[in-house]
Amino acid sequence: MSHASPTSLPDFSRGDGLLPAIAQDFATGEVLMMAYMNAESYAETLATGRAVYFSRGRQRLWRKGEESGNVQLVRGVYVDCDADTILLKVEQLGGAACHEGYRSCFFREITPDGPRVVGERVFDPAQVYGKK
Amino acid sequence: MSHASPTSLPDFSRGDGLLPAIAQDFATGEVLMMAYMNAESYAETLATGRAVYFSRGRQRLWRKGEESGNVQLVRGVYVDCDADTILLKVEQLGGAACHEGYRSCFFREITPDGPRVVGERVFDPAQVYGKK
Repeated sequence: MSHASPTSLPDFSRGDGLLPAIAQDFATGEVLMMAYMNAESYAETLATGRAVYFSRGRQRLWRKGEESGNVQLVRGVYVDCDADTILLKVEQLGGAACHEGYRSCFFREITPDGPRVVGERVFDPAQVYGKK
Repeated sequence: MSHASPTSLPDFSRGDGLLPAIAQDFATGEVLMMAYMNAESYAETLATGRAVYFSRGRQRLWRKGEESGNVQLVRGVYVDCDADTILLKVEQLGGAACHEGYRSCFFREITPDGPRVVGERVFDPAQVYGKK
């Protein structure tokens, strides 16, 4: 098996230039969200210390918190064995990563009886983003 | 914004039928790995209580631990706000999720001086998988 050289970590030649990036709360270990990065958003993340993703829906850089103010300060950057997934340890400002107002986007547990909301709602999306 | 109905969680109609699945140690919170699931592997995961992924490289179900014995016992299943990412909380048998022998696949930290191995190596891959 070949290994990527240090200079190609992460390897944006994989996955059509978009790699999954997991954001984890640096203090609690809670997994907050998963989004995608391209080389440009990754470089800006390293340069600014704030998480910048690439929005597949909008096809542009997504500076996390640009609307809500809920910026993610990067406390650590990790790459997996295959160099095609990124893990960020972050300090989540505003207490909520999810646009629905929950601390974590993974606020629903799948139980034998169906999905159940287990997450804590920190803010009202209508107040933060305006009513839609 | 529309919300997926409970019966469509997770929504395998997205992402060409493959959704990212994050495995997190249920006890320590450590993020162990990220892989992909299709509807079949997800159903088998729920039915058996063991993590089953879909290997994109091999284009078949990947019963985690089928070669190494390092099975993941599922302690919780979560889905994100967009219903297109899965989070598993698992008990990692054998102490290592990564085929390179580390507890976590995210064993390298990106530092200003380049990648640095920070993870703990639990086993020697050559002994577990045979020399290649």
